[in-house]
Amino acid sequence: MARGRATDTTALVAAAGEAFRRKGYRNATIDDIAEAAGISRPTVYKYTRSKQHLLDLMVEEVTSDLRRRLAEVLDSGEPPETRLRGMISGHIEAASANRTFYAIVFSEEVELSEQGRASFRAWAHDRTRDFRLLLDECVPEGSRIDTTIAANLVLSMLSTLYRWYDPAGPVTPEQLSQQIEELLGALFRH
Amino acid sequence: MARGRATDTTALVAAAGEAFRRKGYRNATIDDIAEAAGISRPTVYKYTRSKQHLLDLMVEEVTSDLRRRLAEVLDSGEPPETRLRGMISGHIEAASANRTFYAIVFSEEVELSEQGRASFRAWAHDRTRDFRLLLDECVPEGSRIDTTIAANLVLSMLSTLYRWYDPAGPVTPEQLSQQIEELLGALFRH
Repeated sequence: MARGRATDTTALVAAAGEAFRRKGYRNATIDDIAEAAGISRPTVYKYTRSKQHLLDLMVEEVTSDLRRRLAEVLDSGEPPETRLRGMISGHIEAASANRTFYAIVFSEEVELSEQGRASFRAWAHDRTRDFRLLLDECVPEGSRIDTTIAANLVLSMLSTLYRWYDPAGPVTPEQLSQQIEELLGALFRH
Repeated sequence: MARGRATDTTALVAAAGEAFRRKGYRNATIDDIAEAAGISRPTVYKYTRSKQHLLDLMVEEVTSDLRRRLAEVLDSGEPPETRLRGMISGHIEAASANRTFYAIVFSEEVELSEQGRASFRAWAHDRTRDFRLLLDECVPEGSRIDTTIAANLVLSMLSTLYRWYDPAGPVTPEQLSQQIEELLGALFRH
């Protein structure tokens, strides 16, 4: 692999991401991961105890990255609409930076360890709640929007950008962000 | 299983859906499927040649069901906004009727046969194109909405309803449809 040999767990998780993306999590072997990482099979076991452990780490990486980005936005003290814009941009940036991991994490939930799955679900639950609280501040007085439903709908949209949006393609992240804002104008127009 | 013994391929696909949902596609064995179907392992092979074949059939079921519902709406001759409402309701009804199949189909794409995957992608491509053409008729003159991007965003939202929406819960399909319309008001208000 062009990336060179993996020399820590983070690099090994990145290499595993490539192997999982190419062959699917279940079909990828430790040998495939070793090959993608440019290291030997025994060396893989220096950094991880199992393939499932690598998947759990991938989920941890995606969720903690997004949690960090969103916390920055939510705690910014900016007006609600600015925070909403920031939430949208944060999701676009996160999905663009970790496209491979997103594709894996959102399709391999069933393969997580019990603890990994519980932690993923708790994270998803908190994210929906935080987003709903922000929408409560955003939606115009007298709006018929149910912010719990809207939070689920918008987060589904933002969590699945990886399925179709290619940050290297013709649409820039800024253009995508503007388009989402146009589409969800009902949340912005006071 | 309460459903009784599977006596044709359709019933076997339904039973396989339960087994896949419970254990994940890759972990579910032919024995699990046989058990869910209330039939013996050799009888399973009377109806299908492999687990992958059952997954391909499940994709075929989901896509042909949705294609049929959406074709009805698109060919109705109704005004654009009525067709857009119909597309939204069609997705909600389809996702509610086939919740288990949706969850499997949208997370197991990598496991499809080459032909199954090609056919799924062709279907997804056509659906996005048809939806974009409808949005071209819907968006107000002078709108800044890019209908290709909007089609991808809205279809991502509608394709992942199965992840959070429980049709047996407190929100009726009609209420969900109204909420989506409120949220996507930018596509409706001429």
